[in-house]
Amino acid sequence: MAEIRKDIITGDSVIISPERGKKPQDFKITENNPSEDIYKEDCPFCRGNEGQTPKEVLAYRTNHDDITDWSIRVVPNLYSALQKETAFEVLESDFYEKVSAAGSAEVLIEDGRHNVTLGQNDFDQVLRVLYAIKERIQELRNDERLKYINVFKNFGVSAGASKEHGHWQILSTPIIPNKVEKELEGAKKYFGKKRKCVYCEIIKNEINIQDRLIIDEDKFVAIAPYASKYAFETWIMPKRHFGNFDSCSHIEMSNLAKILKEVISKLENKLNYPPYNIVLHTIPIKMNEEKYYHWYLQICPKLFTEAGFEISSGININPTPPELAAQSLKEV
Amino acid sequence: MAEIRKDIITGDSVIISPERGKKPQDFKITENNPSEDIYKEDCPFCRGNEGQTPKEVLAYRTNHDDITDWSIRVVPNLYSALQKETAFEVLESDFYEKVSAAGSAEVLIEDGRHNVTLGQNDFDQVLRVLYAIKERIQELRNDERLKYINVFKNFGVSAGASKEHGHWQILSTPIIPNKVEKELEGAKKYFGKKRKCVYCEIIKNEINIQDRLIIDEDKFVAIAPYASKYAFETWIMPKRHFGNFDSCSHIEMSNLAKILKEVISKLENKLNYPPYNIVLHTIPIKMNEEKYYHWYLQICPKLFTEAGFEISSGININPTPPELAAQSLKEV
Repeated sequence: MAEIRKDIITGDSVIISPERGKKPQDFKITENNPSEDIYKEDCPFCRGNEGQTPKEVLAYRTNHDDITDWSIRVVPNLYSALQKETAFEVLESDFYEKVSAAGSAEVLIEDGRHNVTLGQNDFDQVLRVLYAIKERIQELRNDERLKYINVFKNFGVSAGASKEHGHWQILSTPIIPNKVEKELEGAKKYFGKKRKCVYCEIIKNEINIQDRLIIDEDKFVAIAPYASKYAFETWIMPKRHFGNFDSCSHIEMSNLAKILKEVISKLENKLNYPPYNIVLHTIPIKMNEEKYYHWYLQICPKLFTEAGFEISSGININPTPPELAAQSLKEV
Repeated sequence: MAEIRKDIITGDSVIISPERGKKPQDFKITENNPSEDIYKEDCPFCRGNEGQTPKEVLAYRTNHDDITDWSIRVVPNLYSALQKETAFEVLESDFYEKVSAAGSAEVLIEDGRHNVTLGQNDFDQVLRVLYAIKERIQELRNDERLKYINVFKNFGVSAGASKEHGHWQILSTPIIPNKVEKELEGAKKYFGKKRKCVYCEIIKNEINIQDRLIIDEDKFVAIAPYASKYAFETWIMPKRHFGNFDSCSHIEMSNLAKILKEVISKLENKLNYPPYNIVLHTIPIKMNEEKYYHWYLQICPKLFTEAGFEISSGININPTPPELAAQSLKEV
């Protein structure tokens, strides 16, 4: 039966509507399966094409004499929406408000091979991806202009990826984004009322209830959130309470690599390499640890297109109840 | 030059980034041009296929003996996310909050012909569409369970349309949606500070500045909003201050049909029948007119896919400055 669920952190409503899953489609959305090519001549992210990208800001190499001998590369985004060399300033405007597009945009290349997906990749390589993200965040913290570092991965055209080759993006903004502010406010409000971290409470509740628990690891859980906006949405949450992703210990990083690889691999298998986004929710870089905020990874498969209703209402319609999604991912 | 603009009503930021428009795409998004068929046997919205839909809730007919003789039909949505027969109730839940999916979902069929787009259609037919929306809103007001009536049109697969045949949707919810609440709060806050309606101020400013003014009609303006989230986003705003769309006078309805047809036709011509959403922003049905709220139509072409950055930040990246969009639409 359909129901309207409320996100306990943000207050956003979601319609969980199994009926909608039965709607026939006039159009077929064809999604590319992962490429069969290990190398593509015109792909700037492929091993051997290092000259096609701007200069690296970070690379993991063993042999520094061989430019092609890398496991991870991070390079500036050639088509950046935000400028590294721009100072932050409030720009003059009579009626409206605007600020300069100060910030930075980097691309983390996940592997030298064109066609290896995150779920298929080795544990060691997934761990290197996470370490490279951590290193970049720690470096970008020094940039005085920045207030937030957005870390995300787009996979597949329907999830907004413009490149097929596996990559992540690190996009830093000179403002705390609207959504981050809203989440912080919601978490703070919950703490104000209950004197408890809402994320810790979610973890406790989901381990207790089991219905939406996908994986229960040593240091992390993977759950299908109660008010999932997307079909098969999955959150990976650290059991320890802390707000900064980059404060992960080595043991936590290693456990995170394991659970992330497992979740993505389950999604790839169950949904046949769906388009998806991964989004890191972490505390703004200039904020200290807070009792109310707790970082996590949000994984959003993009099986349906958002439309006028979402623009009108901000309410997503999700045809797959998270209990069903969790059950079916557990079985993979 | 790129800049970060703030929506004066909601406070949401948008990155206006001409550089992003130059980004090459590995993937080609193929959008269907309008169909060439005036009739399709399996399309439940086509004239002659009236038996393929549930019973009409509204129809405009001249000859009532001929079931095919209609200009507009409104029928219940077969795959509704919300239920007409469900009572509104807060459902039991230990930790999270949920309510029943009480509401209704209707489809307004814009024309009996399969392939006529909104921009191509006659003025009289566009006016009938608007009158049918008004009538349905006025009828749905009587449903005690409802708090908001979402009216929108999805055109094209990338804008989330599941049917090719031109149609609108009227989706009523038993709650005031998050985004509507946020907009009301923003408008109220502005009024609290300046004792002026922010929408009236926008209209005055845009007529004065001219840069983002697309059409200046007798009763309405069409503008490219300052903090456009979407490339070629357009707002159609009534010059008179009122919050309820269905309080439009006959002269206003007629002027609205004219400007709506003109805006859509310009978008169709300039962008070659792009996918788009139209969203009606109107005051919740149980609220009275307020000095701070002013209804309008938002038209959002969907030329780019939202991705991880939007999920992370809530900030849209728009490669087309609204001043450029307005200029180029003015010239069509």
